Amino acid sequence: MIIRIGIVGYGNLARGVESSVNQNPDMKLCGVFTRRAPDSIKLKTDGVKVFSIDDLKTMQNDFDVLILCGGSATDLPEQTREYVSMYNVIDSFDTHAKIPEHFENVNEEAIKSSRVAIISCGWDPGMFSLSRLYSNCILPDGKDYTFWGKGVSQGHSDAIRRIPGVKNGKQYTIPIESALDAVRSGSNPELTTRQKHKRECYVVVEEGADTDAIEKAIVTMPNYFSDYDTTVHFISEDEFNLKHSGMAHGGFVFRSGKTGFNGENNHIIEYSIKLDSNPEFTANVLIAYARAAYRLYLDKQYGCKTVFDVAPSLMSPLSPADQRKTLL
Amino acid sequence: MIIRIGIVGYGNLARGVESSVNQNPDMKLCGVFTRRAPDSIKLKTDGVKVFSIDDLKTMQNDFDVLILCGGSATDLPEQTREYVSMYNVIDSFDTHAKIPEHFENVNEEAIKSSRVAIISCGWDPGMFSLSRLYSNCILPDGKDYTFWGKGVSQGHSDAIRRIPGVKNGKQYTIPIESALDAVRSGSNPELTTRQKHKRECYVVVEEGADTDAIEKAIVTMPNYFSDYDTTVHFISEDEFNLKHSGMAHGGFVFRSGKTGFNGENNHIIEYSIKLDSNPEFTANVLIAYARAAYRLYLDKQYGCKTVFDVAPSLMSPLSPADQRKTLL
Repeated sequence: MIIRIGIVGYGNLARGVESSVNQNPDMKLCGVFTRRAPDSIKLKTDGVKVFSIDDLKTMQNDFDVLILCGGSATDLPEQTREYVSMYNVIDSFDTHAKIPEHFENVNEEAIKSSRVAIISCGWDPGMFSLSRLYSNCILPDGKDYTFWGKGVSQGHSDAIRRIPGVKNGKQYTIPIESALDAVRSGSNPELTTRQKHKRECYVVVEEGADTDAIEKAIVTMPNYFSDYDTTVHFISEDEFNLKHSGMAHGGFVFRSGKTGFNGENNHIIEYSIKLDSNPEFTANVLIAYARAAYRLYLDKQYGCKTVFDVAPSLMSPLSPADQRKTLL
Repeated sequence: MIIRIGIVGYGNLARGVESSVNQNPDMKLCGVFTRRAPDSIKLKTDGVKVFSIDDLKTMQNDFDVLILCGGSATDLPEQTREYVSMYNVIDSFDTHAKIPEHFENVNEEAIKSSRVAIISCGWDPGMFSLSRLYSNCILPDGKDYTFWGKGVSQGHSDAIRRIPGVKNGKQYTIPIESALDAVRSGSNPELTTRQKHKRECYVVVEEGADTDAIEKAIVTMPNYFSDYDTTVHFISEDEFNLKHSGMAHGGFVFRSGKTGFNGENNHIIEYSIKLDSNPEFTANVLIAYARAAYRLYLDKQYGCKTVFDVAPSLMSPLSPADQRKTLL
């Protein structure tokens, strides 16, 4: 069985999905849908067509699962709901606070259309969430810790770029090693925001800009930077382009918990990832859940799901018997 | 809803389950079953009865899930199959090579009896298997590494104790730090058995025993020790009892994989645990899957399952909506 994949959008995440389909012999990329002029887009995969997003209205028979690669701010809240009325869909909606609302909206449509949506697939939300859920079930008496980085925060980079005089900027979120070690020790520390992460900024300024004022504007910015130890580096545009165009990321999820009649034994569960390419890793998570979505659809398990609702077996290209034999 | 738990057996794992039930307000320990004289066993929980294992024949209405705490060598291959004909059951069957056979045997009975069994719950098999499965789905082009320890290997400790002149002995399996670092670097090393783990032995000898001969017998023992760098420490019985009666364990599961059209980006997923008490942690995994087993039973999803077949949501005491709100 070959699963016919469609990609909606063609940014970094979509290009990751395109390359991920390549790694999965049971999948075939059958089209990319864009709001731009289809002619303006050149795919990396030979023989795959680019369609106008409007063509989605009539192509239900040509795709088994659509991977929605738009942004969480404005695209996905509309698109996931709209396209699940016609297709099985996967998204990486990552605005944590709005997941319950997004779930309800998408679920309502998916039930009506007898389709499957799996939302918020990626690493946080996604694999990190799974680690939190499993670990909480196993160690009910415990404490969670999530650390992000080292990696670029888009929101913080945007905030820097909005400062007058700034031409370009990138912000790295970096977990503080001593905090990781304190958690690993099992001491269940109470950690302030400042103790968990530090922020490092690389900034290119307009000619004649006041770097002191810019640095002050950054480090004192409420919500974004004022609660953190922040370092600002002013660099040339050449250095910026050379050294700060990567998309590496990563992070750590811990559960530290106690067992025993008197809580006398401590246990640490640590899940961590170190990624050369954040969008390509996220894309690979999306593709694994696309396989699960299609199987749930064939099994008539319609509705909206998250990573919590999907039995891991459904994500694997191996048969359940082979999974038991080789991975259990 | 309170889930009524029965424990079969009363060794270290069973005592772990007893304390785990205590941490889970939606569960109640309703009885312990033993092959010994019930009077000879004193539970830590007040008001819970100890029954003869023969009483299981007539108590189907009193228990929602039985946790089978026997050994994998001889108890579980018989017990899981026998008791799933009357109860929902959980086991920690850990003879990896025999899991497929155990699964088929248990599944056949469970389907006949319209009950649920979840087998091989623990950490390896169990949480480590889950980490391998998820990571393989996400990074199909990659390599797996599993390390165990630092912790006691029962089989290797038994092998030491069978040597003439040895009064008592314990063997620790220890992952080699440089191997962990090589895997973390993303270099996808080929590691020999000797490069992955070392073995450390603490041995108490009979009076007048030949320690040189014993040391040689250990380090040259085929399968168990000859492929490893093994250190032997001869210690007094007092020191042995003082320092080597703990049940700490742990380990690491890695997937190192590539993405991108030319495999140009590398990713590392690392899952690790550090346990003060191996049996109590395993017990907590069993109990979380007991919750899932009961829900699967209520939903009429009969048969034998493994951790691969269970949607993580089913293990949590939280409602799906609360899971999404607090953990996703």
